[in-house]
Amino acid sequence: MAVQIASRVPALKNVATRLRIDSVRSTSEAGSGHPSTCCSAAEIVAALFFSEMRYDPRDPHNPDNDRFVLSKGHAAPILYAAWAEAGILSRDELLNLRKIDSDLEGHPTPRLPWVDVATGSLGQGLSAGIGIALNARRIGSDYRTYVLLGDGETAEGSVWEAAHVGAHMGLDNLCAITDVNALGQAGPTQWEHDMEAYAVKWRAFGWHVSVVDGHDVPALLAALEDARRTKGRPTMILARTVKGKGISFIEGLNGWHGKPLRKGDELQRALAELERQFVPEEEPAPPPDAPRTARRASEHRAAAGTIDPPAYRVGDSVATREAYGEALAKLGLKDIRVVALDADVKNSTYSEKFEQRAPDRFYQAFIAEQAMLGAAMGLAARGAIPFPSTFAAFLTRAYDFIRMAAISNLNVKMAGSHAGVSIGEDGPSQMALEDLAMMRAQPNITVLYPCDGVSTERLVAQMAAHHGPMYMRTSRPKTPVLYGPDERFDIGGLKVLRESADDAATVVGAGVTVFEALKAYEHLKAKGTAIRVIDLYSIQPIDAASLVRCARETGGRVITVEDHYAAGGIGDAVAAALAPAGFTVARLAVREIPRSGKPEELLDRYGISARHIVSAVERGA
Amino acid sequence: MAVQIASRVPALKNVATRLRIDSVRSTSEAGSGHPSTCCSAAEIVAALFFSEMRYDPRDPHNPDNDRFVLSKGHAAPILYAAWAEAGILSRDELLNLRKIDSDLEGHPTPRLPWVDVATGSLGQGLSAGIGIALNARRIGSDYRTYVLLGDGETAEGSVWEAAHVGAHMGLDNLCAITDVNALGQAGPTQWEHDMEAYAVKWRAFGWHVSVVDGHDVPALLAALEDARRTKGRPTMILARTVKGKGISFIEGLNGWHGKPLRKGDELQRALAELERQFVPEEEPAPPPDAPRTARRASEHRAAAGTIDPPAYRVGDSVATREAYGEALAKLGLKDIRVVALDADVKNSTYSEKFEQRAPDRFYQAFIAEQAMLGAAMGLAARGAIPFPSTFAAFLTRAYDFIRMAAISNLNVKMAGSHAGVSIGEDGPSQMALEDLAMMRAQPNITVLYPCDGVSTERLVAQMAAHHGPMYMRTSRPKTPVLYGPDERFDIGGLKVLRESADDAATVVGAGVTVFEALKAYEHLKAKGTAIRVIDLYSIQPIDAASLVRCARETGGRVITVEDHYAAGGIGDAVAAALAPAGFTVARLAVREIPRSGKPEELLDRYGISARHIVSAVERGA
Repeated sequence: MAVQIASRVPALKNVATRLRIDSVRSTSEAGSGHPSTCCSAAEIVAALFFSEMRYDPRDPHNPDNDRFVLSKGHAAPILYAAWAEAGILSRDELLNLRKIDSDLEGHPTPRLPWVDVATGSLGQGLSAGIGIALNARRIGSDYRTYVLLGDGETAEGSVWEAAHVGAHMGLDNLCAITDVNALGQAGPTQWEHDMEAYAVKWRAFGWHVSVVDGHDVPALLAALEDARRTKGRPTMILARTVKGKGISFIEGLNGWHGKPLRKGDELQRALAELERQFVPEEEPAPPPDAPRTARRASEHRAAAGTIDPPAYRVGDSVATREAYGEALAKLGLKDIRVVALDADVKNSTYSEKFEQRAPDRFYQAFIAEQAMLGAAMGLAARGAIPFPSTFAAFLTRAYDFIRMAAISNLNVKMAGSHAGVSIGEDGPSQMALEDLAMMRAQPNITVLYPCDGVSTERLVAQMAAHHGPMYMRTSRPKTPVLYGPDERFDIGGLKVLRESADDAATVVGAGVTVFEALKAYEHLKAKGTAIRVIDLYSIQPIDAASLVRCARETGGRVITVEDHYAAGGIGDAVAAALAPAGFTVARLAVREIPRSGKPEELLDRYGISARHIVSAVERGA
Repeated sequence: MAVQIASRVPALKNVATRLRIDSVRSTSEAGSGHPSTCCSAAEIVAALFFSEMRYDPRDPHNPDNDRFVLSKGHAAPILYAAWAEAGILSRDELLNLRKIDSDLEGHPTPRLPWVDVATGSLGQGLSAGIGIALNARRIGSDYRTYVLLGDGETAEGSVWEAAHVGAHMGLDNLCAITDVNALGQAGPTQWEHDMEAYAVKWRAFGWHVSVVDGHDVPALLAALEDARRTKGRPTMILARTVKGKGISFIEGLNGWHGKPLRKGDELQRALAELERQFVPEEEPAPPPDAPRTARRASEHRAAAGTIDPPAYRVGDSVATREAYGEALAKLGLKDIRVVALDADVKNSTYSEKFEQRAPDRFYQAFIAEQAMLGAAMGLAARGAIPFPSTFAAFLTRAYDFIRMAAISNLNVKMAGSHAGVSIGEDGPSQMALEDLAMMRAQPNITVLYPCDGVSTERLVAQMAAHHGPMYMRTSRPKTPVLYGPDERFDIGGLKVLRESADDAATVVGAGVTVFEALKAYEHLKAKGTAIRVIDLYSIQPIDAASLVRCARETGGRVITVEDHYAAGGIGDAVAAALAPAGFTVARLAVREIPRSGKPEELLDRYGISARHIVSAVERGA
C-alpha cells in the first residue's frame, strides 16, 4: 500500500465510525431497520466509498462512475450514510429513513439515482454486478463494479450461478466483498466464521480470493488493490466481521438482527461508545477520485424500433419464437445497446440468430436463469437493452428476480418460448401455463403475445423502443403469417380480425388460439353464425375501449380462449377490462395439469380448440 | 468389489445395451425425445437398477424401497426402459412413449407409481433427493436415495443450494451421480469434460466425491459401494461419459440433443450397431435385491386436523403468522408425519414454535428457498406432510419448484408470511403482492388466506388433513380475533361477517382487508348504509355459490379489496366465480410499485383502506 494511502487510514476509520453513528441514529429514529448489519460493514463501506471507488458525487449518471451494488440490501442505512458522508445527501435527510415521503426506503431502490437495482431479496446483487461489469465491456469503459454481499445470502443458489458465470466470463472488473458477520436473521449463518469454508468454494468456482479482517482498514485497502491488479477473473474478498461491531452490548450477539436501538438510554449509550472511537487524523480523507475517463454523453436512443419491415408474406408459416430471433438479430444490427442472453436454449428460443450477427453482445448464461435475469437487470441499469430468453416455463425459476426488476422498473425485455400445451410431447414440465399470470401480476410489466411472424417482429422492435420491463410470450409450433409487412402494432393495442354487424359473440384469442378462433369462425360461418375474432397481442396494457366496444356490439357475449391456465391470464385480463362496463367473460383455458401428446390433441383435450370455441358460441349465442 | 458382483458385469453391460436399444426405439417411434442423453447414462442406470438398488419391483409403495430420482428428466426413456428390464412394464408399452393415452410422458411424472417427483425442469432432483433422504431418517428406514443429474443442470444455483444443505445435514444415505457427457442442448456444457472442475466444487461443498468412467461398469459398482460405506456426508459420483455412446455416428457430436433417430435406415443402423455390443454373460443379472427391511404398513392418516380448539378469545390480538406457528406446533405434537422447513426466518414466520416442540422434524434450509421447497417435495412424496415457510415474497424464488410440485400433485403445505403493503417500512422487496396470482395460477393448489388467529389455526389443521399442494398466506401485523374457538372453517368456504336484507353492496376482503371492510361497515352504518362483509379465507377453491347469492342479494354490486396487486388475486378469483351469473366486480387492489411507510399509511395510499371501500360503495350504491 502506498504511503499516501496509509496516511488516510485514520480518516477512514473515522468515516467508518460516522457511518455507524448515522446508521444507528437513522434506524432508531425510524423505529425499525438493521443497525447491527450496518455496523459489521462500516470499514468495508468506508474503504470502498472513500478510497477505492472512483466516481463523481455530483454526477450520478456519469457512465464511467465506478458502481456499487448493496446485495445485502437490509444494510441500506449505511449506504445512505455513505452518501451523506460524500455530500450527496444532507445528514438531516438520513433521519427520514423509511418514511413514506422519503426515497430513503427500508431497502434501496432505483428511485435513488445512485442505486442501479433494487435489493432486499437476498442473493441477487452479484448477478446484477455481472451485468454491470459486462456493460463496462460493452461501452468500453474501465469503470469497476463492487458488490457487497452478506454471508447468509451465499446460501442462495443464485449466488453460485453468478459465481460460475462471473468466472466463466473472466470479469476482472468485478470485485465482490462478503461481510462474514456469522449471524443471520434467526441464528448463526451456515458456515459461521469458518473463513476457509467460504474461501474453498469461491476458489473452486474460479475466483481470486482474499480473506481479511473486515474491520482492518489497511487490510481492506490492500485486498481491494490486489483485486484491481488481478486479471482474467473476478475477486471475492471475504471479510471476517462482527455483527454490531462498535457497540459492545450488541457485538456478536444473536437476537439483534433487524432491531434498532431504543431511543433514550440504549441509543445514547451506543452513540457515546461510538463517539469515543474517533481517532486523530493524519490527514482528512480526500474527496472521491473522479472517474478515469472524462465525462462523455450517455448513449442516446438510436434507431430502436425502426428496423426494416418484416420479410414474411401472408400465408407463410413461421413459429413466433423463430420470428423473435430474427427480429432480435435485425435490431442488434441497428442498435448497439441491444444485447441478448440465453440459458442453453438459444437454438430453441432462436436467440442464436442474434448471436450469429452480434456475437460480442450475446451472453451465454448456461442453465442459470437467475444469473441470466440478474445480469440483464445490471445491463439494463447501465443503458443496455437486454433481451434474456429461455423457455417461458423456466422464467418461473427467476420469478424473484423478475419481481425485483419490476420494483426497479428496469428496461429488461424478457422472452419466453414454448408457451402452453401446444408444445406437445415434451409434457407439462416444459409447458408454460402460468407465465402470463406471473408477469401480469407485476403492474408495470408489459405483456405481449404475438400470433404470427409479422406481429412478433414489429413488437420486438416496440419492446426496444419503449422503456420498462416487458415480456414477450412466443410459441413452439409454426403458425401462418396473418399480417402484411406494413401492419402496425402498438403496445396496448389489439387487432379485430373478423367483424360484421351481425356478430353473435366476440372471441378473444392470442398466440396459437387466434388460429383456433379463426377455424371456429369458418365453421360457424358455414352454419350461418358470424363471430368477431380478436387477436389480443397486447395483454398488458390492454385495449379496454376496443374490447368494450366489441362486447357491446356482440350482445355482451365475450369468450376468451388461451393456451394458459384459467387464473391470471387472458380471461382475467379481459374480464377486468370489461367489468366497468358491466360485461362478463366466458373463459376457455387449461384447467388441469396437462400431459404429453400431440399439440392438436392437447389443445382439444384441454378445451381450447376450435371445437370448444364453437360450442361456447353456440351455448351463448 | 466382491467376486459375486464381478461376475455380473457382462450381464450388466448387456442390460446397458438393452436400455440403449429401448431408448432409441421408443424415441424413434415417438418421433421426439432425447436418445443421446439416454445413451450416456446407460451403464449408470444399469448399475443402479440391477446391482446397487434394493427394491421390490412388484411393490412400488413399499416404504423401504431404495429411491431413484431422474433429475435429468429428459432421459425419461431410459428410466422407462429400466422398468421394462425389471419387469415393471412390458417392453411393448415402451413404444407408447409420449402418446396422449400413455403415462410414459416426455418427462417423468408421478402418474407413474415409481416416480416421486416430476422432473424435466433441470436442477430440482437433488433437492427432492434431500427430502427423500430426510424422510428415511424420519421413518427410521435404511433405504438409500439415488439422484442422477446431468452435467449441464449443475449450472443451476438450486443444485448448489442442495449441495450445501445435503452436506450440512450429513446425508450419507444420499448418493448423486452426475452424467458428465459434456454436451448441453445448444453446445458444450460449462465445464465440458474437465472432471476436476466438477470435483473441486463438490468437495468444496463438503461431499464425498468419486470420479469414474461412466461407461465402466466395475468402476461404477465400486464407486456406488464406496458411497454406501461413506459415513457422515453424501456422495457425488462424477461419471465421465459420451453423449450418444454406443451409436458411432452420433457419439459426442453436438446437434444431437433432443433428436430421435429417423425411422428407417438411420434407426436400423443404430440398432444394428447396438446389437453387436452384446457380450457373453457369465451369469444372468439376478433380480433386484429386496429392501433391507420386511414390508411394513405405510403410515396411515393419524389424527391430523383434530387438534384442540384454538386458545384465542374474540377480541384478542394476534398476527396470523404467529397463529400459524402455534397451530403447526400443536399439529406436530399430534402427527409425526408433520415436518417443518424454514429459510432463516423462523422467528418471523413463527415456524420456530414448531422447532421448539418437535426439533427433530424441523429442517433449517438457511436462505435457500429452492432447496427448502425441493426437500419438501421429496418429503411429501414419501409420506411426510411438510410445511415449508418463509416470507411470501421469497416463495417467488422457488416458483419453478412450486410449479413442479403442482405438476406432481404433491402434498406440500406452503406458508408465506409478511404479505402485502401491510408489512410497512421494510418496503417493496419484502412485500408479497403477487403470491396469490402465482399460487392461484396452478389449478390444483389450494390457496388460503385467514384473517385471524382462530381461522388460521383451524385452516392449518385442514391443510394437514387434506391431500394436495396448498398455500397459506399470513400477515405481519397483529389483528383482532374475530371468531370463537369452535367456529368451523372448511376449505372452499367463506364467512359472511355482516349481513342484512338492505345491503347496498357486498364487500369481499381477506386477511388484513377484512378489518378495513369492517371499519367501512361501521362508517357506512353511521351514515345509514348497510353493506355485506365477507371474509374470503379460501380463495382457491372458492365458494362461488355463496358469492353469487350475496351478489344477487346486494343488487349485483360486489367490491373486492385485497393487499395484493390487481391481477391474479382476489378480485380476479371473485370475478371468475361470479361471471357465469353475469355479475362483475369492482376491484380495490395495489396498482403500482409501493414504497416504505407505516402499514396504515400504505393501505391508504395504495387504495385499500376503509376510506376507499366507503368511496367505492358510495360510488356504486
